[in-house]
Amino acid sequence: MTIHRQSSGVFIISATPFRDDGALDLESTDRLIDFYLEHGVSGITVLGMMGEAPKLAPDEALAFLRRVFGRVAGRVPVLVGASAGGFEIMRRLMHVAMDLGAAGAMVAPPPGTNTEAKAASYFAGVCEALGPDVPLCVQDFPQASGVHLSPACISGLARTHPQIVMLKHEDWPGLAKITAVRQAETADTPRLSILCGNGGLFLPQELARGADGAMTGFAYPEMLVEVVRRHQAGETDGAEDLFDAYLPLVRYEQQPGAGLAARKEILRRRGAIASARCRAPGPTCSALDLADLDRLMTRLDQRLTALGRAA
Amino acid sequence: MTIHRQSSGVFIISATPFRDDGALDLESTDRLIDFYLEHGVSGITVLGMMGEAPKLAPDEALAFLRRVFGRVAGRVPVLVGASAGGFEIMRRLMHVAMDLGAAGAMVAPPPGTNTEAKAASYFAGVCEALGPDVPLCVQDFPQASGVHLSPACISGLARTHPQIVMLKHEDWPGLAKITAVRQAETADTPRLSILCGNGGLFLPQELARGADGAMTGFAYPEMLVEVVRRHQAGETDGAEDLFDAYLPLVRYEQQPGAGLAARKEILRRRGAIASARCRAPGPTCSALDLADLDRLMTRLDQRLTALGRAA
Amino acid sequence: MTIHRQSSGVFIISATPFRDDGALDLESTDRLIDFYLEHGVSGITVLGMMGEAPKLAPDEALAFLRRVFGRVAGRVPVLVGASAGGFEIMRRLMHVAMDLGAAGAMVAPPPGTNTEAKAASYFAGVCEALGPDVPLCVQDFPQASGVHLSPACISGLARTHPQIVMLKHEDWPGLAKITAVRQAETADTPRLSILCGNGGLFLPQELARGADGAMTGFAYPEMLVEVVRRHQAGETDGAEDLFDAYLPLVRYEQQPGAGLAARKEILRRRGAIASARCRAPGPTCSALDLADLDRLMTRLDQRLTALGRAA
Amino acid sequence: MTIHRQSSGVFIISATPFRDDGALDLESTDRLIDFYLEHGVSGITVLGMMGEAPKLAPDEALAFLRRVFGRVAGRVPVLVGASAGGFEIMRRLMHVAMDLGAAGAMVAPPPGTNTEAKAASYFAGVCEALGPDVPLCVQDFPQASGVHLSPACISGLARTHPQIVMLKHEDWPGLAKITAVRQAETADTPRLSILCGNGGLFLPQELARGADGAMTGFAYPEMLVEVVRRHQAGETDGAEDLFDAYLPLVRYEQQPGAGLAARKEILRRRGAIASARCRAPGPTCSALDLADLDRLMTRLDQRLTALGRAA
Repeated sequence: MTIHRQSSGVFIISATPFRDDGALDLESTDRLIDFYLEHGVSGITVLGMMGEAPKLAPDEALAFLRRVFGRVAGRVPVLVGASAGGFEIMRRLMHVAMDLGAAGAMVAPPPGTNTEAKAASYFAGVCEALGPDVPLCVQDFPQASGVHLSPACISGLARTHPQIVMLKHEDWPGLAKITAVRQAETADTPRLSILCGNGGLFLPQELARGADGAMTGFAYPEMLVEVVRRHQAGETDGAEDLFDAYLPLVRYEQQPGAGLAARKEILRRRGAIASARCRAPGPTCSALDLADLDRLMTRLDQRLTALGRAA
Repeated sequence: MTIHRQSSGVFIISATPFRDDGALDLESTDRLIDFYLEHGVSGITVLGMMGEAPKLAPDEALAFLRRVFGRVAGRVPVLVGASAGGFEIMRRLMHVAMDLGAAGAMVAPPPGTNTEAKAASYFAGVCEALGPDVPLCVQDFPQASGVHLSPACISGLARTHPQIVMLKHEDWPGLAKITAVRQAETADTPRLSILCGNGGLFLPQELARGADGAMTGFAYPEMLVEVVRRHQAGETDGAEDLFDAYLPLVRYEQQPGAGLAARKEILRRRGAIASARCRAPGPTCSALDLADLDRLMTRLDQRLTALGRAA
Repeated sequence: MTIHRQSSGVFIISATPFRDDGALDLESTDRLIDFYLEHGVSGITVLGMMGEAPKLAPDEALAFLRRVFGRVAGRVPVLVGASAGGFEIMRRLMHVAMDLGAAGAMVAPPPGTNTEAKAASYFAGVCEALGPDVPLCVQDFPQASGVHLSPACISGLARTHPQIVMLKHEDWPGLAKITAVRQAETADTPRLSILCGNGGLFLPQELARGADGAMTGFAYPEMLVEVVRRHQAGETDGAEDLFDAYLPLVRYEQQPGAGLAARKEILRRRGAIASARCRAPGPTCSALDLADLDRLMTRLDQRLTALGRAA
Repeated sequence: MTIHRQSSGVFIISATPFRDDGALDLESTDRLIDFYLEHGVSGITVLGMMGEAPKLAPDEALAFLRRVFGRVAGRVPVLVGASAGGFEIMRRLMHVAMDLGAAGAMVAPPPGTNTEAKAASYFAGVCEALGPDVPLCVQDFPQASGVHLSPACISGLARTHPQIVMLKHEDWPGLAKITAVRQAETADTPRLSILCGNGGLFLPQELARGADGAMTGFAYPEMLVEVVRRHQAGETDGAEDLFDAYLPLVRYEQQPGAGLAARKEILRRRGAIASARCRAPGPTCSALDLADLDRLMTRLDQRLTALGRAA
């Protein structure tokens, strides 16, 4: 139950539920995990940036991890965001997480990793700190980190470190990068599982370029799951028809910062969590944002109804 | 025929056509201007970033300007991008442009304008350099410039400089900013025309917040025009239905860098320009990008047909 | 024993000592604290960026804090770096730190705090989270954070929040900012203690503009202490003569990243810590860097001897 | 009289003189060129960022170029800053400049050149646009451009393009980079001339790492010239003694933005230009800045006198 080079489907990036008073909400954690599993995700990623991990105190992060692993109970792999200021912190977190049953670690290079040599050195350090038994997903998220990993650099990482088995692809524009990483796979450059972020905004195009699925936190995971399923079944038009119906909301949730408040509000409306609260400092939905969601959710229902009739 | 506080509709950001050999293509300039006018735009913006202005030699920029003004022949206002490293350059360009009949200047604050006092000082300098007779559009494009103009700062500019009459809004996320700028309008803080960029990605939501229209270069200007028209007529659902049909392509064109190559390719396919060439260094469409466009344009046709049947 | 509006002198930013194997070195922590106190510092700042705080596991940070407070034993105020991803983490850390006897918290606004309204809102949140009894030092370090706090913004914070009593000034160029903040002090804009960072590179000029001293980690704290003392005694030439003797090393230590390795190496050579090790990922001194230090330290000795003869 | 792989000494980055009313000052241009030549520079670089090139209108840039080349009259090589938004502009500028007798072009990669493949592609385009007869100096200035060229990338450029013969080194920290580039020189990786910028702040250390000299605009070029001369003569202590005397002013001039106003003020005081004016938008010296310069220049005189007595 670890991530591997053929991992595919949808690894949902889990929100972290808080109560209206800002406390960690473990009851909603159960409900949210159930929600994700019921909607067919292939895996769950926790403690990512979207998961507000930097706002959790150490004991809270641990309590949340325990709760998630307890609820998932081995049904799907759980990938753990382990980006940190130092390797020692990373090592300690993953030691605990692997004992709990983690499927691997996801690590983004820190700001300042601005040459390929530095990126290679950084991930060599990560691999050494975690040890060879922790499968690793490289998170490529230049908009947040300012770090640009070239396709050649990513392929080099895959070639050098057997434990690097997955790429969370979140560059933008990034279609050409997926193509380049895929084309570089040869006898001595092993395949990486490529799961795509950016809120899913380019999912159909990314799948067409060879991505294996999505890793994002869109509040309608069933869409992501079904789009990947249809694509794998060769129903590319059906996949894109479904995707397009959700695209207005995909776009709305992809707003930097503000999108997370919208996403948690939708999860709340769908019954997956009790409160849409983001921890401070964090975004909130204004009355006008809520009105946008009213409208966009209503339009989505109408569109899905129309799609159903057409099918 | 200048921009003013009530300017509305679609100011299309004009591409700059080049030949396959990279030379400025003045014949296509005529054709492109006709294309924009035939599709109902309210105004045209030239020499913006998307217009590859920094790649034009000074005499080329002048030749292009003359051709555009000659072809437009006063039918719609033409706004001129005048961002430059120094006020003297700006002053000289706008002196020529106003003689040709320009509707005003559009200026973005340069990188390093990182406090409100610096922004206020910068635009005071711009206004002094251009003189009070040149209407000014403030371009707020933090993703490109790194400069963040707060709503309070924008309102302060509107209050201080009577010639500042328009905001090109391109922050992201920016919905709350539109609301804040609108709400700050009072007796002593005059109204700004707000036209929105970001490829139009949030146009229906931006109109709902009080924006007056769009200023972007989407290759289907008729969509932008019709969405604004329907919105102004109170047909908000019809506006958003039409917008959603184009959203997959809006999103595709909004890719930083790569999007311009896609946009020029669509303009070429639609007969508006002879070559999709961007000047070096610039993006090009790969074979896979072209296949994406084939597919997205075909799907758009199908969707428009379905919309037509439904109407 | 808290920081206050008249705090002055040198708050040394403490290194965090590690052993050659990377483990936290609490014995060296004692020795380092003694070293700082023997050299006459007015205060000590711990868990800052230079202190490698982001590389400490939570229990290590706590162990380090306890050791520092135990050794200092109330002889000088100890300011605690509390910048964090969320207010709840900050609150918990400072709860512990104040119980241990902390003199206050130092907080830098996070990346993305890009307007004055956001900065005001951020520090309002910090103040609320910490409660009114925790004196606050605002860390203004735009090179690291990308956040630019204008003088007007800083004065606004001082006016709004009685607990904000100190500015760690680290802008660059920043001389005009010190002047502006000082000039804004009036009946309703209370004075801030201004202590300067940037490795001390502009210390004489900063004192001349009204700064109260230094807050930086230069490996020769006695220079900082004596320069501030002489300046306060009106011996500005003597202050600058001494400063200039150390300037080649001040400059060397101020190199981003690499400077910390040099600083810890000098502290090691001076007997203040057992190992110059920075925790991974972190800088190390190459053989050529060590040769630079050999040379610069020898030249410093010669220069001090010459200064002594001249005096 | 072109730049080449063994170019050494001091290529002074020329200021561009303006009159108090902001007009280009061609009389002062003559005087400034004479000043540089009289102080022994090996070469002159014009139209760099420090030269306020982006604030010159095209005809002004041309007039300035003609004046400089006329005055230099072939006595030293003149390198021309040619960074531009597009290759066509670069090509046209260098066509004119080479006809006037330019020694080569200096080009910095533009923002967004964030991988080694993009940097390689960019400079391939530059070389093709300029043609093989224009010797090229790669400007590596990450603080301004955000572009980080690794040593491997720089060596690759040297290997691929025979016309790339010089590196303007301005990384910070950059000592390790000089070492790495020098160590990579082999039979198939030709030597680059390395001249250092950053205001000269690390010049002695850079020379010790194998740099060939300086390329910066410090207002006392005689110091740079003599430090390089002494270093080449093996008088490393004498070189550093002289350097250290000027270091307080080197540091003052190196302030981003503000430093240029100080530099032009010193040049004015030394009689090299008629006005210290920077073109708008640009920095000016406040009364307090001028007082800093009074003091620092007086102290420099005293220090040089003492050095002279000691010698």
